[in-house]
Amino acid sequence: MTPLDYLDKHQQRFIDDLCTYVRFPSVSAQPQHSPDVRACADWVALRCRQIGLETTLHQTSGNPLVVAKTPKHDPRKPTFLVYGHYDVQPPEPFDLWKSAPFEPRVEGRNLYGRGASDNKGQHLAHLNAVEAFLATGTELPVNVTFLIEGEEEVGCGGLYGFLPKNKELLACDAVVISDNGIPSLKHPTLTYALRGIVALEIRLEGPSRDLHSGLFGGTVENPAMALCQLLGKMRDRKGRVTIPGFYDDVQKLSRYERQQLAKLPHSDTSYRRLVGVPQLFGEVGFTVEEQRTCRPTFEINGLTSGYQGEGSKTIIPCWASAKLTIRLVPDQKPARIVAAVRKYLKSLCPPTVRLKISDGHGGEPYLCSPTSPLAQAALKALEAGYGYPGALAREGGSIPIVNRFRSELGADTLLLGMALPDDNAHSPNEKFNLDSFESGMRMAAHLWPLLAQAHAAD
Amino acid sequence: MTPLDYLDKHQQRFIDDLCTYVRFPSVSAQPQHSPDVRACADWVALRCRQIGLETTLHQTSGNPLVVAKTPKHDPRKPTFLVYGHYDVQPPEPFDLWKSAPFEPRVEGRNLYGRGASDNKGQHLAHLNAVEAFLATGTELPVNVTFLIEGEEEVGCGGLYGFLPKNKELLACDAVVISDNGIPSLKHPTLTYALRGIVALEIRLEGPSRDLHSGLFGGTVENPAMALCQLLGKMRDRKGRVTIPGFYDDVQKLSRYERQQLAKLPHSDTSYRRLVGVPQLFGEVGFTVEEQRTCRPTFEINGLTSGYQGEGSKTIIPCWASAKLTIRLVPDQKPARIVAAVRKYLKSLCPPTVRLKISDGHGGEPYLCSPTSPLAQAALKALEAGYGYPGALAREGGSIPIVNRFRSELGADTLLLGMALPDDNAHSPNEKFNLDSFESGMRMAAHLWPLLAQAHAAD
Repeated sequence: MTPLDYLDKHQQRFIDDLCTYVRFPSVSAQPQHSPDVRACADWVALRCRQIGLETTLHQTSGNPLVVAKTPKHDPRKPTFLVYGHYDVQPPEPFDLWKSAPFEPRVEGRNLYGRGASDNKGQHLAHLNAVEAFLATGTELPVNVTFLIEGEEEVGCGGLYGFLPKNKELLACDAVVISDNGIPSLKHPTLTYALRGIVALEIRLEGPSRDLHSGLFGGTVENPAMALCQLLGKMRDRKGRVTIPGFYDDVQKLSRYERQQLAKLPHSDTSYRRLVGVPQLFGEVGFTVEEQRTCRPTFEINGLTSGYQGEGSKTIIPCWASAKLTIRLVPDQKPARIVAAVRKYLKSLCPPTVRLKISDGHGGEPYLCSPTSPLAQAALKALEAGYGYPGALAREGGSIPIVNRFRSELGADTLLLGMALPDDNAHSPNEKFNLDSFESGMRMAAHLWPLLAQAHAAD
Repeated sequence: MTPLDYLDKHQQRFIDDLCTYVRFPSVSAQPQHSPDVRACADWVALRCRQIGLETTLHQTSGNPLVVAKTPKHDPRKPTFLVYGHYDVQPPEPFDLWKSAPFEPRVEGRNLYGRGASDNKGQHLAHLNAVEAFLATGTELPVNVTFLIEGEEEVGCGGLYGFLPKNKELLACDAVVISDNGIPSLKHPTLTYALRGIVALEIRLEGPSRDLHSGLFGGTVENPAMALCQLLGKMRDRKGRVTIPGFYDDVQKLSRYERQQLAKLPHSDTSYRRLVGVPQLFGEVGFTVEEQRTCRPTFEINGLTSGYQGEGSKTIIPCWASAKLTIRLVPDQKPARIVAAVRKYLKSLCPPTVRLKISDGHGGEPYLCSPTSPLAQAALKALEAGYGYPGALAREGGSIPIVNRFRSELGADTLLLGMALPDDNAHSPNEKFNLDSFESGMRMAAHLWPLLAQAHAAD
């Protein structure tokens, strides 16, 4: 029996397994679920052992993580690390769920439950594919190491401590992560780039206290007005960030990339309806998909100043603040961008207020070549699994662990998501599409021989 | 005995009376003080009757008010209405008071207690001056009507209902109000103009919900950025409001007014320290005193958008709002200014967000001639009372009742405040300076003959 036949034959059991997995309320953000989190980790380890993987449950500074390797790693074969997480988002608000979040329900070709697609179902597809090789006695042309952690939804703290101390254990030629999405079942996608981020908070301070706007208005700068004038200058009406040097390190999009991105399904009208704006707005000269994933942005995430209650209060507020995040694209460097933003803000800030800037977190953008042999092999695996040509995409968000794998393990990551846009990750009624589960398993089964070939040819 | 001798002789009793008056916790904003408010009104009525005034306690839609007239109004004499209020601001926060707010304490030449200067002490000075005439059998050359209300600190609701129904009862040639301040005991001041106000709230709405700034950033307008860009255009770096037509109705300051205003004590350095800003900022071409009182302003009183908690949240907020107040000067009209602001905001707002504007309260600016015979007589009374030449000032704030007296009674108001800048009105440790109390009584005693003369000559 081939691994693919094995996968076909065991579909119902895989669905039952996923139901079992989803029943663990492994909510990492909620201390009351700590026993459930540990029980879930134990179940993952047990499942890995049942398949025949060499499995260890590792304690970390936070929740335990599971490392499970295909038996007897062969140093002549390339090694791939499959990353996933068994922890899930909190299920609240409960009243918006049509069925209980930890009582999985299959309706048509969807399996509903918290964690079904984010991320239990997706890494289970990889485990099932490896099981298919081992159970049918088919030789795996690669070594596979599974790394399934329990704190992805709360910042990966335990893993970040674990990684530098276990580089040898986790050594690999590349990482495979299925923890993101595809536009549709007809557009299986390799995501080859992510945006980075820097977060800042700025605060303008004026008078030593809120002043009566009648008695003092007209003689002092209003910090809220100064903030508006300052931030308003950061982006022009063509959607360009005006900070000097901001675009200096932005890698130009190749014609190949633009062609590939243009193949992704998109309609301005339905996108506009999805986000609910009266009119789209973005950087002139780029498509919506390019704006969303290939271009850096300057966003205000929050504004706070003065009186926010009912009615009015006639004050000049003594301070005004803004929370900002800047999305970065390759090859922008967080430190360099923060320096440019600070310099520009300082140069524009009037002497009538005091400017305070605090740096928050930062993360580098990520890019791996979409034309590398491994990437091209992944595209073939997508087509073999889903029955439609593999597409190339970038993503606008960040997946910080990808940069850690690159810096700690020296390995690039292939992002091969299986979630659909309506899978409600992080929302009520999360689900996993069972067609994508099945196609994802087939993709995963095709992946290892294709990656092995590509690695040999490279 | 002359009225002035009488005032001298009874100083200690007047101080004791003010202490009695301050002991009433007549806090109109706090329902638990409702009995105290009524007891205080009764005391005012009793005090007026004791002096010999024809006194009525009137129920209103809110707290009672007292109308007390000098006996047998003579239709051949001019009539003046003295307005004051017996209600006080809440005393909180208690822990900042050096002594209990409703247990008056005399220290040196200051009497500490909530309401001491705002407004109990100030209208009591007028009552005492009239008492001096009546008790010494000195003929008052004018009719005086006292109107002491109990809701000034909560918007004068009761009085606003009472006024139109009692125009005859309150008919007068002019109103006298001592409920504001003077720069120092050496600068007794007639305030002849007040700024008006209009309040607005604007809200920009973008996406139908907060969007993930990674997944969507770059494709939709950020409402917080749009708000900053919109508001930032409302005022230039020379301190000028940029709304078309904004200054059309602003009355030019006469040379006489500018000369008079320049006589008021002022130091940019100490003013800057008072407000605590790194550098003053105001409309180019005007002094600080002129900016503060004679020029219209556009102020942001509050900004609200997106995430305001600790740390960062990577969202594009779905809306952003601002509370705005515009201070008006003669002859700007609230309705016309609101229309101009609405029109300008609409013309600048990009089509990528939805603009919502709600109007709040409005009040006309106030101006009475500083060169009229009555105003000049008031200046003489100030000099006679305080021993220093009377100064002319405008005020930057609004006193809405002044416009009501003009519209309902057809009477201008002479604003003859007695409070000093450090009297802490509305703040902990409110006090009244007893030198100003004494000088104020003398001013009030001089006022009636001087106003009578001026009225006859007019």
